[in-house]
Amino acid sequence: MIKKVLIANRGEIAVRIIRACKEMGIETVAVYSEADKEALHVQIADEAYCVGPTLSKDSYLNYTNIMSLATLTQTDAIHPGYGFLSENAEFAEMCEECNIIFIGPSSYAIQKMGTKDVARETMREAGVPVVPGSSGIIQDAEEGKRIANEIGYPVIIKATAGGGGKGIRVARSEEELVKGINVTQQEAETAFGNPGVYIEKYIEDFRHVEIQVLADNHGNAVHLGERDCTIQRRLQKLIEETPSPAVSPEIRKQMGDAAVKAALAVDYSGAGTVEFIFDKNEEMFYFMEMNTRIQVEHPVTEMVTGIDLVKEQLNVANNEKLSFSQHDVKFEGWAIECRINAEDPYKNFMPSAGKIDMYLAPGGLGVRVDSAAYPGYSIPPYYDSMVAKLITYGSDRNEAIQKMKRALDEFVVEGVKTTIPFHQRVMEHEVFVNGDFNTKFLENYKIMDD
Amino acid sequence: MIKKVLIANRGEIAVRIIRACKEMGIETVAVYSEADKEALHVQIADEAYCVGPTLSKDSYLNYTNIMSLATLTQTDAIHPGYGFLSENAEFAEMCEECNIIFIGPSSYAIQKMGTKDVARETMREAGVPVVPGSSGIIQDAEEGKRIANEIGYPVIIKATAGGGGKGIRVARSEEELVKGINVTQQEAETAFGNPGVYIEKYIEDFRHVEIQVLADNHGNAVHLGERDCTIQRRLQKLIEETPSPAVSPEIRKQMGDAAVKAALAVDYSGAGTVEFIFDKNEEMFYFMEMNTRIQVEHPVTEMVTGIDLVKEQLNVANNEKLSFSQHDVKFEGWAIECRINAEDPYKNFMPSAGKIDMYLAPGGLGVRVDSAAYPGYSIPPYYDSMVAKLITYGSDRNEAIQKMKRALDEFVVEGVKTTIPFHQRVMEHEVFVNGDFNTKFLENYKIMDD
Repeated sequence: MIKKVLIANRGEIAVRIIRACKEMGIETVAVYSEADKEALHVQIADEAYCVGPTLSKDSYLNYTNIMSLATLTQTDAIHPGYGFLSENAEFAEMCEECNIIFIGPSSYAIQKMGTKDVARETMREAGVPVVPGSSGIIQDAEEGKRIANEIGYPVIIKATAGGGGKGIRVARSEEELVKGINVTQQEAETAFGNPGVYIEKYIEDFRHVEIQVLADNHGNAVHLGERDCTIQRRLQKLIEETPSPAVSPEIRKQMGDAAVKAALAVDYSGAGTVEFIFDKNEEMFYFMEMNTRIQVEHPVTEMVTGIDLVKEQLNVANNEKLSFSQHDVKFEGWAIECRINAEDPYKNFMPSAGKIDMYLAPGGLGVRVDSAAYPGYSIPPYYDSMVAKLITYGSDRNEAIQKMKRALDEFVVEGVKTTIPFHQRVMEHEVFVNGDFNTKFLENYKIMDD
Repeated sequence: MIKKVLIANRGEIAVRIIRACKEMGIETVAVYSEADKEALHVQIADEAYCVGPTLSKDSYLNYTNIMSLATLTQTDAIHPGYGFLSENAEFAEMCEECNIIFIGPSSYAIQKMGTKDVARETMREAGVPVVPGSSGIIQDAEEGKRIANEIGYPVIIKATAGGGGKGIRVARSEEELVKGINVTQQEAETAFGNPGVYIEKYIEDFRHVEIQVLADNHGNAVHLGERDCTIQRRLQKLIEETPSPAVSPEIRKQMGDAAVKAALAVDYSGAGTVEFIFDKNEEMFYFMEMNTRIQVEHPVTEMVTGIDLVKEQLNVANNEKLSFSQHDVKFEGWAIECRINAEDPYKNFMPSAGKIDMYLAPGGLGVRVDSAAYPGYSIPPYYDSMVAKLITYGSDRNEAIQKMKRALDEFVVEGVKTTIPFHQRVMEHEVFVNGDFNTKFLENYKIMDD
């Protein structure tokens, strides 16, 4: 049985994980960088230790320090949260070797899904629809040109080691393709230490729809429905909801089945997300990638299923069988999440780190706030800019939107600029309200220009 | 259609009602006393007006000012919240006469249920079980003695106009009875302008279990299950939960049916609560009183039924039919509410008004906070001492308790003393955790003395 968990993360997700542990009677060890001494996760954990200087690479990504600390504090398991070490197969393997439970899938599954071209081939073999494109990494621009001619322009060039919107480039002509391959390879070499790129048909005007899966170590896997994360800015998700206003019951079932198939194909264990490109016009979906960790937007799924995903991660890590089958998973109501970031939406979302002078989160029925902010807290400029995740739940989409509007109105954050005004405008926007939009929403409608 | 609502209240319930109105697209008018200029409900309403000086009788109970303001602001309806004018039949009647919708039952129903001996007789006639006792007000101590001898000691003397723990006295002997009748009559005369008292068998070691009902203007009434409000201090509720750990499915059905019968007997409309004395040993329950308004503890019912009680009040006031029948009401999970008051639990719950220097409410999955507090807010000493209602929801009682423990741990209120330490001790107390307790819990276990 897991008695003590080290949380190798910071911010709201560290707080989220500590909360779940506390409710399960599990002791918690927080880690922090020198810039995060005053952070909320440090205050609420049972123990907290500095693991290095400000830069992530020296602290939150510092394997050695984190592993030594886990050993010293007699930690049974490490929860990596999202980002940082969460999809690092090497770190997962190190945990496996040190007999510390890595709360996530095996290093094998991380590896398979983390290498994008391998993931794509694995999915194709498992019968999960993939976007037409190269089979694996392309050798050179010549091969790229041949494939692009086969599948037709526009195409997308992706670094196999990329992720989170990095290492991706669209090409609409042969010229752009050749240039794009070179630049993406160089970038990928620099950023990820791996220059490999592959090519896919670029599907325009798609929706980002993903499926939450949950699997145990005993061969059971279920899906918990979809999340629609179509509202993005430069491939960064800003607003997520479930169910998707664009997904029919038939597509939901097909996508869910495909996601479970994807998980089983890599012997997946724990919580994971299979992301799909959903072409609404064609009613077709294609595997994009699998995120082998808890996701920022996991709360919306919790709201409509009543299932606590972090507790389920801990149960699976404890080698327990899933306590429910696919048939038991029920969906009720509608949930929306707005990511409130410390950015100035009137100035092209420029980051706005600094001290929060006044902070008052909204409350009441159907409002959930996941945050690590507090009055007087200084948001350090070194990490992500998230202030809070604001999640509302209603019996239908309209009620969830109305709740979001009143919760955004109530949310007080003074001292830093936030994206609250942006979210307010989106919630009022006719196209958003109608639910008929694609990932180009922010390009097509200049939300902040009015 | 109601387009504008005046909220004749303050504090968290005013905030609660404004939130529901906003989500329904209804404009809101807040009222405040001179002491409440800085109150949150004033800040979040569309309009706000001072209706008088600090004392409630000059402001929140000032019919004339409130009615003129309602007329001036072209308000369609008045929501009285709880306390203040909420159970004032005269005020409801005045609204009826002025063609302003009183969001609550008719003045007739308020009158019937507000006069305790009348309510008792009405219930007896409707076939709702009542505690053995006098039929109506007793004429003098002699009649009291005769009835007490019939039903046996101990008995309870109750002022017919009393409520909220005031105008109630227990007598265990003839001597105590005679004295008690005199004192209660005098007290009731002074406090309520009505000296009438009646007598009931005093049931010791009972649980306070109440049923939420909802009725429309078209003869439909449903119940939304029970709330167990057994944890009290001097007849003031401190912790409420639903379902009750002591109520069987059979008793739940009987009690629910009785509550619906009670509502129908007075042509009830809107949200109301039928309170019962529940004798766990005998598996018997008796009508105590009906509260003809929204109650402090309504959120726990909302958490397990998914029904927004304040929105339903507004729908009923709009003359709509209930959108669901008894059969549609489903109960899922467990909810607990702790009332966090500005009182010092280490000093016999002495009120602790003053400035809140630091305020940070807990968040995350299954945590709801209904509050009007904010960092820098000064709690005035003139009204109730509530800082926040903390509500947690879990799949079962244990999870709800675990969530409450971690939420209480997280809750930061600095500058005033609060009852958080009290609630923390109760949540850890073996007897509370077992669920086997009665209204004497706080007398029997000196929670704060350890």
